[in-house]
Amino acid sequence: MLLRRTHTCGELREKDVDTQVTLNGWVNIRRDLGGVIFIDLRDRYGLTQVVFSPQDNEKAHAEADELRNEYVVGIRGTVRKRDPENINPKMDTGEIEVRVDELYIYSRAKTPPFEIKDDIQTNEEVRLKHRYLDLRRGPLQRNLMLRSHVYRAVRNYFYDHDFAEVETPVLMRSTPEGARDYLVPSRVNPGRFYALPQSPQIYKQTLMISGMDRYFQIVKCFRDEDLRADRQPEFTQIDVEMSFVDEESIYEMAEGMMKRILEETTGKAVSVPFPRMSYQQAIETYGSDKPDTRFDLRFVDFSDIVKDSEFRVFSKTVADGGKVVGFVAPGFGTLGRGIMDRLTKKVQQEIGAGGLIYMKNNEDELYSSVSKFVKEETSRAMVDASGAQTGDLILILAGKSPHVLHQLGDLRLMFAKEYELIDESRNDFLWVTDFPLLEFNEDDGRYYAMHHPFTSPHPEDTGLMDSEPGKVRARAYDLVMNGSEIGGGSIRIHDMETQKRMFGLLGIEEDEAREKFGFLLDAFGYGAPPHGGIAFGLDRIVMLLAGAKSLRDVIAFPKNQRAQSTMDNCPDEVEKSQLDELYIQLKPVIKK
Amino acid sequence: MLLRRTHTCGELREKDVDTQVTLNGWVNIRRDLGGVIFIDLRDRYGLTQVVFSPQDNEKAHAEADELRNEYVVGIRGTVRKRDPENINPKMDTGEIEVRVDELYIYSRAKTPPFEIKDDIQTNEEVRLKHRYLDLRRGPLQRNLMLRSHVYRAVRNYFYDHDFAEVETPVLMRSTPEGARDYLVPSRVNPGRFYALPQSPQIYKQTLMISGMDRYFQIVKCFRDEDLRADRQPEFTQIDVEMSFVDEESIYEMAEGMMKRILEETTGKAVSVPFPRMSYQQAIETYGSDKPDTRFDLRFVDFSDIVKDSEFRVFSKTVADGGKVVGFVAPGFGTLGRGIMDRLTKKVQQEIGAGGLIYMKNNEDELYSSVSKFVKEETSRAMVDASGAQTGDLILILAGKSPHVLHQLGDLRLMFAKEYELIDESRNDFLWVTDFPLLEFNEDDGRYYAMHHPFTSPHPEDTGLMDSEPGKVRARAYDLVMNGSEIGGGSIRIHDMETQKRMFGLLGIEEDEAREKFGFLLDAFGYGAPPHGGIAFGLDRIVMLLAGAKSLRDVIAFPKNQRAQSTMDNCPDEVEKSQLDELYIQLKPVIKK
Repeated sequence: MLLRRTHTCGELREKDVDTQVTLNGWVNIRRDLGGVIFIDLRDRYGLTQVVFSPQDNEKAHAEADELRNEYVVGIRGTVRKRDPENINPKMDTGEIEVRVDELYIYSRAKTPPFEIKDDIQTNEEVRLKHRYLDLRRGPLQRNLMLRSHVYRAVRNYFYDHDFAEVETPVLMRSTPEGARDYLVPSRVNPGRFYALPQSPQIYKQTLMISGMDRYFQIVKCFRDEDLRADRQPEFTQIDVEMSFVDEESIYEMAEGMMKRILEETTGKAVSVPFPRMSYQQAIETYGSDKPDTRFDLRFVDFSDIVKDSEFRVFSKTVADGGKVVGFVAPGFGTLGRGIMDRLTKKVQQEIGAGGLIYMKNNEDELYSSVSKFVKEETSRAMVDASGAQTGDLILILAGKSPHVLHQLGDLRLMFAKEYELIDESRNDFLWVTDFPLLEFNEDDGRYYAMHHPFTSPHPEDTGLMDSEPGKVRARAYDLVMNGSEIGGGSIRIHDMETQKRMFGLLGIEEDEAREKFGFLLDAFGYGAPPHGGIAFGLDRIVMLLAGAKSLRDVIAFPKNQRAQSTMDNCPDEVEKSQLDELYIQLKPVIKK
Repeated sequence: MLLRRTHTCGELREKDVDTQVTLNGWVNIRRDLGGVIFIDLRDRYGLTQVVFSPQDNEKAHAEADELRNEYVVGIRGTVRKRDPENINPKMDTGEIEVRVDELYIYSRAKTPPFEIKDDIQTNEEVRLKHRYLDLRRGPLQRNLMLRSHVYRAVRNYFYDHDFAEVETPVLMRSTPEGARDYLVPSRVNPGRFYALPQSPQIYKQTLMISGMDRYFQIVKCFRDEDLRADRQPEFTQIDVEMSFVDEESIYEMAEGMMKRILEETTGKAVSVPFPRMSYQQAIETYGSDKPDTRFDLRFVDFSDIVKDSEFRVFSKTVADGGKVVGFVAPGFGTLGRGIMDRLTKKVQQEIGAGGLIYMKNNEDELYSSVSKFVKEETSRAMVDASGAQTGDLILILAGKSPHVLHQLGDLRLMFAKEYELIDESRNDFLWVTDFPLLEFNEDDGRYYAMHHPFTSPHPEDTGLMDSEPGKVRARAYDLVMNGSEIGGGSIRIHDMETQKRMFGLLGIEEDEAREKFGFLLDAFGYGAPPHGGIAFGLDRIVMLLAGAKSLRDVIAFPKNQRAQSTMDNCPDEVEKSQLDELYIQLKPVIKK
């Protein structure tokens, strides 16, 4: 039995008055006002007030007595204008109601473990366990629809620009560089394993060598990482690669995409091109490779001014190659001693700095927290260098570089959040460019690729590859939105020789390189175009657009922080026969 | 170094003559005609003839001497009209050529193991091993672009109809009903496993219970099946689910989608609605649940006519509950004895029928291959019943039903292929409806869901569920295109009671049902809408549209029939440390 709907629950307006309609949906709220029963009927599109009155239809009214929240029903009735005093301007359908002639109950409902409404305090584990109910709530419905609209904007942008959408394999080869792979045993090839892709990097480069020219894909990627606050074992990437391009083409493409996403989903204008800043400059100015530029608080380097200071914290830091750096907090010269003490403690505990030094450039005095040790003229010189105005506060850290810059970056963010200096209505984009090619890992005593091993070194720095590999810049770039990295990519190496050299720097032996990436090296030998690309974190972009607090709020069926789905109890034990077929067994240490 | 292109290789026309242009691409063919070097430069968009002459630029001409096929280059030059005798009407850019002033070689190329051209005879293993070269060839480039256009058509169709695109998890719970799951060991949850989805069935139903109303996704699915001719371990599904619908809404949606795909990719008009036929009728008329309706050859049931025949093959078959069935091949009464003998042998060997009986209704005589045993009046009655005209051939099989119907279906296809009765220019769609709910498996002595365990029984047949479960029809439907099943779906069960009853019929114990699908049963308890859906095989749709012979020709990086990718040697052995981390080990029987 189906009462085929004529309208959705978000659709009826005053112009529909007197029309016969059929609606389907969930009972959102039921009120019985002395013989007349009102329900708000809910579907994805909205709410409509539905009225059961014995005057309209006695049978339907009697049947409606049974209705409870979350019952699923179909109704037939007539649209009526509400009495003026009952018009609800907050509801799209608030001018009308539907007076019911016929009711059909599709399905009854127990009382849900939490209310189906926007604001609830229920803990997340309960909500995840009953995800099918949580997804009925407005915020998650809106987030999923936003996500759907983001897909649409992205895809149509790339379709319009002649990109080929290509699906790359999910069952691929394990190449344990970077994070851990998820492995998949092969039954047909006993003792052998597939891996789930951490990214389709190798395939998209192969597609460029294949002449596909411009590729995009919205694709699931997988990383078996240790548990961190807001990570998901599977995540979604907007993956792009282009041939015969340099950085400028990638920037232009990415800017167009973000503009389209924002304009189609939020309606907010985005101005392009986005500003750019080198990695070095970002670290020196904001103490971060993903600075939030929606507020200022730029760094000032006091090292030169204080290098001869009698205050050893200053002079010794500089002598040891460290830095004394700070930023001006305009108008915060009035913060009292108690507040500053609490801030200092927080800096020590949460950021791990040895201490916080500050100056208040007030009209009556220049207060310095280290005035006992630092001459007033040095303090004056610091104020002058900082450009601080009367009434401003200057926060200063001293330490090893670049460590101290990152600490000051954390302080900058902490301060801005605490004092609400961030204009949340803004969407700021920034390209961070010229990342280092390599990172030195002290523990292993070796270099790792900062981006990945296919990233092209900066042509001006190739001479340094053997002598000072740590100083080589990469043709790598990140796109930052409101202080979050939302994309990263590079111009790739496209010749075998440079690629081999890069593997050499990474300590990947020739045999190993051949075994892991042999086909890519082979492919380079048959004519590879210059190419480059970028991958965007779709989950994060949607999270930022939605103003959501967690990735879990923008993913339909997320895993919890134990990489589990409690809704369907996954992962779970499997039949021994399944393992037998795969030629694997559990290690004896595991109790079944 | 990048010569930034101004045009693609498929773009220049006569109107561009005298323009300065920059092109990038691969050397497709190089010819040296006495001091002037011609190359066809190739990219995804086309070919352009490029000319190096010492008169235009001596340096470029000298450098071009080095060029070989598949070198990747950038050129700058001027568009010129070709001499009339050199105009190539087969080439989009055939009216012009580019005379080169500057050449830059991005990358050199070894001689490929096979030619980069449309028709090659190279065996598939070599082509798969060098997939990056195979993908440069015209047919695969066109297939991948067609596939990309199919994605676009499908997505925009669903976006336009207000479907929410939702991604469902790839790491899910193993539910070993149906085919084998691919398993993924969990490191964080030792001894436990994820499975890769065979379909997002459970999630899409959960989304309906969540009120998402209309869902679609183009999604990878996985089945660890035994090796069959043209299967891939991972395949792509267009997955759709809708709430508050019956079959009619699904049909209308699917027809609109197919219409849009065909009209956007092939330009061919598609008329809707598609014809429909019940499963029963399809088997009885064509001996197949996915009949190719591009040719006729409908079945005639002779059982009633021959049930009392003195010819035991006829009468005993019917007496034993079997059937004597055949079809008329119009105009084939002239086929000679030798041909008919070969056909009989083929029917025995390839289709497994005991024998083939035939009659030729020619003007001079009614020839019957069993005239010794069958009275002429019986043969006459069969001809009359079949509607055969003079000059027609009638092919007949006798045997158990429905077995004999399937055999005759195979014969029908075999005959149509052999004699080219199939109009390949047509695209025929057909809904096959009312599939049986259950299939009885003789080996296990139990019923299996023909579609899947969530399929709703036909409301008229629910009374039979306990008494004659094999006779219950399902609200299940397949979409057939040119004799291939391209989609299948059903109206789902949306109440707990029917679902439990279904599990009972399938011999799934309550505990087991609870463990595997408990959350779905729970979800039904909180108000589920009537819902239904369908899933289409995207790979197969693209294959049919492309006229390709194999799914491998429409997938960028397919696996071979051993579920391997020889390009990157996958699957492969992994480090023991990787297995250790996952708390699994190989079974000792496997030699490392």
